[in-house]
Amino acid sequence: MELVVVMRSTATADDKAAVEQRMADMGLAAHRADGEFRTMISAVGTIAVDSTQQLEQLVGVDRVIAVTQPYRLASRELHEADTIIDIKGIRVGGPHVNVIAGPCAIESRDLLFEVGKAVKDAGASILRGGAFKPRSSPYSFQGLGLDGLKLLAEAGNELNMPTITEVTDPRDVEVVAQYADIFQIGARNMQNFNLLLEVGKTDKPVFIKRGMSATITELLMSAEYVLSQGNHRVILCERGIRTFADEVRFTLDVSAVPVIQQRSHLPVFVDPSHAAGKRDLVPALALAGVVVGAAGVIVEVHSCPEKALCDGPQAVLPARFRKLMEELRQVAELAGHRVTAWGDKNSSHRRVESGGWMS
Amino acid sequence: MELVVVMRSTATADDKAAVEQRMADMGLAAHRADGEFRTMISAVGTIAVDSTQQLEQLVGVDRVIAVTQPYRLASRELHEADTIIDIKGIRVGGPHVNVIAGPCAIESRDLLFEVGKAVKDAGASILRGGAFKPRSSPYSFQGLGLDGLKLLAEAGNELNMPTITEVTDPRDVEVVAQYADIFQIGARNMQNFNLLLEVGKTDKPVFIKRGMSATITELLMSAEYVLSQGNHRVILCERGIRTFADEVRFTLDVSAVPVIQQRSHLPVFVDPSHAAGKRDLVPALALAGVVVGAAGVIVEVHSCPEKALCDGPQAVLPARFRKLMEELRQVAELAGHRVTAWGDKNSSHRRVESGGWMS
Amino acid sequence: MELVVVMRSTATADDKAAVEQRMADMGLAAHRADGEFRTMISAVGTIAVDSTQQLEQLVGVDRVIAVTQPYRLASRELHEADTIIDIKGIRVGGPHVNVIAGPCAIESRDLLFEVGKAVKDAGASILRGGAFKPRSSPYSFQGLGLDGLKLLAEAGNELNMPTITEVTDPRDVEVVAQYADIFQIGARNMQNFNLLLEVGKTDKPVFIKRGMSATITELLMSAEYVLSQGNHRVILCERGIRTFADEVRFTLDVSAVPVIQQRSHLPVFVDPSHAAGKRDLVPALALAGVVVGAAGVIVEVHSCPEKALCDGPQAVLPARFRKLMEELRQVAELAGHRVTAWGDKNSSHRRVESGGWMS
Amino acid sequence: MELVVVMRSTATADDKAAVEQRMADMGLAAHRADGEFRTMISAVGTIAVDSTQQLEQLVGVDRVIAVTQPYRLASRELHEADTIIDIKGIRVGGPHVNVIAGPCAIESRDLLFEVGKAVKDAGASILRGGAFKPRSSPYSFQGLGLDGLKLLAEAGNELNMPTITEVTDPRDVEVVAQYADIFQIGARNMQNFNLLLEVGKTDKPVFIKRGMSATITELLMSAEYVLSQGNHRVILCERGIRTFADEVRFTLDVSAVPVIQQRSHLPVFVDPSHAAGKRDLVPALALAGVVVGAAGVIVEVHSCPEKALCDGPQAVLPARFRKLMEELRQVAELAGHRVTAWGDKNSSHRRVESGGWMS
Repeated sequence: MELVVVMRSTATADDKAAVEQRMADMGLAAHRADGEFRTMISAVGTIAVDSTQQLEQLVGVDRVIAVTQPYRLASRELHEADTIIDIKGIRVGGPHVNVIAGPCAIESRDLLFEVGKAVKDAGASILRGGAFKPRSSPYSFQGLGLDGLKLLAEAGNELNMPTITEVTDPRDVEVVAQYADIFQIGARNMQNFNLLLEVGKTDKPVFIKRGMSATITELLMSAEYVLSQGNHRVILCERGIRTFADEVRFTLDVSAVPVIQQRSHLPVFVDPSHAAGKRDLVPALALAGVVVGAAGVIVEVHSCPEKALCDGPQAVLPARFRKLMEELRQVAELAGHRVTAWGDKNSSHRRVESGGWMS
Repeated sequence: MELVVVMRSTATADDKAAVEQRMADMGLAAHRADGEFRTMISAVGTIAVDSTQQLEQLVGVDRVIAVTQPYRLASRELHEADTIIDIKGIRVGGPHVNVIAGPCAIESRDLLFEVGKAVKDAGASILRGGAFKPRSSPYSFQGLGLDGLKLLAEAGNELNMPTITEVTDPRDVEVVAQYADIFQIGARNMQNFNLLLEVGKTDKPVFIKRGMSATITELLMSAEYVLSQGNHRVILCERGIRTFADEVRFTLDVSAVPVIQQRSHLPVFVDPSHAAGKRDLVPALALAGVVVGAAGVIVEVHSCPEKALCDGPQAVLPARFRKLMEELRQVAELAGHRVTAWGDKNSSHRRVESGGWMS
Repeated sequence: MELVVVMRSTATADDKAAVEQRMADMGLAAHRADGEFRTMISAVGTIAVDSTQQLEQLVGVDRVIAVTQPYRLASRELHEADTIIDIKGIRVGGPHVNVIAGPCAIESRDLLFEVGKAVKDAGASILRGGAFKPRSSPYSFQGLGLDGLKLLAEAGNELNMPTITEVTDPRDVEVVAQYADIFQIGARNMQNFNLLLEVGKTDKPVFIKRGMSATITELLMSAEYVLSQGNHRVILCERGIRTFADEVRFTLDVSAVPVIQQRSHLPVFVDPSHAAGKRDLVPALALAGVVVGAAGVIVEVHSCPEKALCDGPQAVLPARFRKLMEELRQVAELAGHRVTAWGDKNSSHRRVESGGWMS
Repeated sequence: MELVVVMRSTATADDKAAVEQRMADMGLAAHRADGEFRTMISAVGTIAVDSTQQLEQLVGVDRVIAVTQPYRLASRELHEADTIIDIKGIRVGGPHVNVIAGPCAIESRDLLFEVGKAVKDAGASILRGGAFKPRSSPYSFQGLGLDGLKLLAEAGNELNMPTITEVTDPRDVEVVAQYADIFQIGARNMQNFNLLLEVGKTDKPVFIKRGMSATITELLMSAEYVLSQGNHRVILCERGIRTFADEVRFTLDVSAVPVIQQRSHLPVFVDPSHAAGKRDLVPALALAGVVVGAAGVIVEVHSCPEKALCDGPQAVLPARFRKLMEELRQVAELAGHRVTAWGDKNSSHRRVESGGWMS
């Protein structure tokens, strides 16, 4: 790893020598450049995570610039090819585009099967449905819990679709693993490190949503928590960030998709539903996600959203979802990608080498 | 116009009566709803702009909610059909998709003509080039000024392209109008109201970029300044907002495009170059803009960006721009739009009624 | 509770009637005001939390404005007097100003006792120290865990100070309750609802830090989770929000203190250490917190910060802390408050009635 | 000046050599440090402003880190002592604390004199009043213009107070200079560079408000525009930034005050009125500004705010202002400062050396 110490303009020769000495003590090679105003001392070697904060406090130091990113297993520097994850035969990542769809919350058996069948018929490859719902109000519907998990497993089996559901508590990891195929870590839990460690100890894929104010580095560090436990099946998801713009619930940061792809080999999805907060914006944002190169989208669908117990306003109706799937397929094909449910699942060439738009 | 006054839970009967009396004095009809905790008093009638702030201060008032948007001429409520602007035969808005391209700054005659020819050949319909450059440092290149304007006019004539250039000072409006076809109001001048009034007095189209921290309402109010002077040829542009996310220069707010289209009849462009700050992200963001329904994109192109005097890192090379034009054309066609330089310029059906993706 | 439905300008008479009918079905009284452009329908009655989202989706509805805040137990509307919490004889809230201090992490027995003694001598009333450290990197020091808790309890006993430590996992609530006097919920866990429910079931005070992108309403809803379980001893803490301003780690939102006090009866602290990220800004921000009316500050102190295993750069040295305590005392006295360690602990008049600066 | 080029991990030896060659061509001395993953090349010498962007585009370059701040005349590195500005005998900066007060807009002779007299009596040292009001709506009251300027000059003379008023158009600089003592550059014009150049050519003090999304570096670069024209009498003002937090109009960034003071010798004020947007928060925020070391505050006062033509809700009443002045005086004294109107105007020792709280 590498870093650069920038000295204050008032730093003395002794201050600079002390920094070089401390670097030597840390086993780092120091390279010094004296400018008119500032001295910069670059350090290379095996740098411990906490070295930055310790060097920052030496007398005469203005700031320390970490040159290497703090994540390793998530980084494309050490793992150049796109990670492609096989989930019951569905391939996620690389040139494959997958659509995850279903109701926000599992409210009843009828609803789940009705919506599940609709999204399956339209071409979605993975079924979503929440059993443990994190709600900002303690008075809101909190999900069906275990009963919801069982319904989800039943629907997944019957429709022959892998399933994804949110886990919010380390104590629930075991039971969720019994019933669902993919763990979803919600935006509010992106830095719930104990939860990340717990799912990292399983062999199930983990779908991590970016926190509403998380930087991309922080998102990749959360992935690193899971990867560091030996679970390499991590999928990331941009779902909108909190900004001053209050016309939508969250500002979908589409540029995050190519930026993450440049830095990491992990697949990146987009969640247009939570970003928009309103169903009429969902199709446009879903298409924007795929056009910038996302490995897929996750969309909330409901057959009677005005009676939904959770986030009805952002749920797309089944008919609109069917149309959206066709639009997504067309856009993905333009980019040289394939929407999984229709495409050849065996293709594995890297997107950035495949004539995609980011080249 | 309409508003709602929400009373504090501690408001007395006299406080409520006083609000109703003040509304009556303002010529407004008051409708009162008494709840368990709060009383709400709705007012309808011809409400002056400053009434909100005055009512907000009466004793017992918690807050005043403005129900009607403060812009009128920019609003789709009073002008339902998309505005389509004819600029020397180029039609902007409605189903037409236009690409504005050229160098950031006009640096020399050779550069401008070389880049201009390249973007024209690739299919761009309007030529951009900066003569007055607003730079955050007084020590940076500030543009060629009048000499730049003359070169731009010459290039526009030779290439048979309408031209756009930024105006930053009310004193320059007259001279810019002599040489260019479209005024660009930069993000930093979006609330330079004197400048807006000045270009509003001309008959040239005005291209207003959203300020980096402006709400959509504020952007439409700036458009209202121009419209209120009798100039109805206004084009809006989303160019990225300032957020905590620092991996790119600005966060392109793609959801702003459909949100503006729901509220206003004015055409909305997207500027991927200033949002990205880096050329390798520009194509993806340009495509995202068109896929969500933008009336066009404005892209910076340079034939030798590593020697550019301004914003070289975000300039796309001519060869990549040619490829981008083809990609944009394909995506626009999927959405039922036409890229102007290739398409039938006479089509004028409204986008939202034409089977586009937002329906 | 109360809400207002704003109809679109294109809503029909039938649309409006349907909204009124749905309100009637929900048991709400509807009051309608027809304006030139918009109709507003106010509803009063016992409104379920999910009604807003359901009404929002009816045909012709533009938006629904929730007039009443969604929290109840945390609200000053239902509990007018300041909550004052007694923690082993230390009174928190109302006119009392308390300073919580200690090292970021418990690194060793020696460090904890050295720093603990220093802050006690200087006048701090509560001892802090982290045993379970949530770190953005899995490779960083994660705290001493149970060993740390035992050291903290020992130090608290010896120094006769109540102790506070962070809990990050619902599974740790029981053991933390055995050793510490106050639960700290960190900013990253502000919406870890299972954790909030778990500490809500205990009788220990809960100190909740505002999430880095949480609104004040969201913070109060998190408090509501704890309160709803029967634990009424909740303390809030503003610790800096994430904004575009990157000169400091987080932007301390001092206006949050009086805004929270207007809405809630719960005590509000300020954390200058995490906001600043650098020790030289800590005293100024601590003073700003007290001057705007905070019930106290929480400050990180370290006797050898350049060797600290966590957040050394923001730790204040013991000597500077002693000076800060004197400054805080002076400022608190000006405002008519008392710093607990010196003051009369029995005073319980409300701050806003006591000649404080917010009157 | 100094900068560091960070190479990509994939950069070749030739790429690195090419960067060093280009630095040599620019007349810079290059210092190279090769790490395990990355090579860093530091450059020292006389670096042109645009070099950063040009180096950033060379093959194999990941990014360029500008080590030296881009401002010079505004920097404390080249001008260590606090700037103290004498305005008709009032000293601004250093240990002096000044309060600027008056109505938002000059609405009438009676109002201006009534409020002016009240703030003078209470201890304010400079009189504010807007003649050219930048309003987000073209339909709002825009100020009295020249008539307002004349009233302001008359009031300033009669009350023996220097005056400040906003200038929004380069064409108005001359006339404003005739009537007022200090130019105010509003937040929306902070990057109106032509306006900055124009006031930079005068010898009147210039009071620059930070833009609502401006970084501190950008604010200091705007000061540099004025300073570069030979006008060294610049005062800065933090007035709240735009964040996701919408409970107040803008989030007052109190940490900006000490951060600016560390970087620049120019006096920094705080504007609590525009940040709060509501009068009941103004005193707390004003005190927070002074407690963190501001050189003063600018406060809007109105004797009948519910009839104000502009921003009435944030105007403090004269009686509350009088109390605030006393509170400000007490807090300033604690910090070793003096509120000008009472204090010894000849003291000129630097604040940071005077036992202030930031030491």
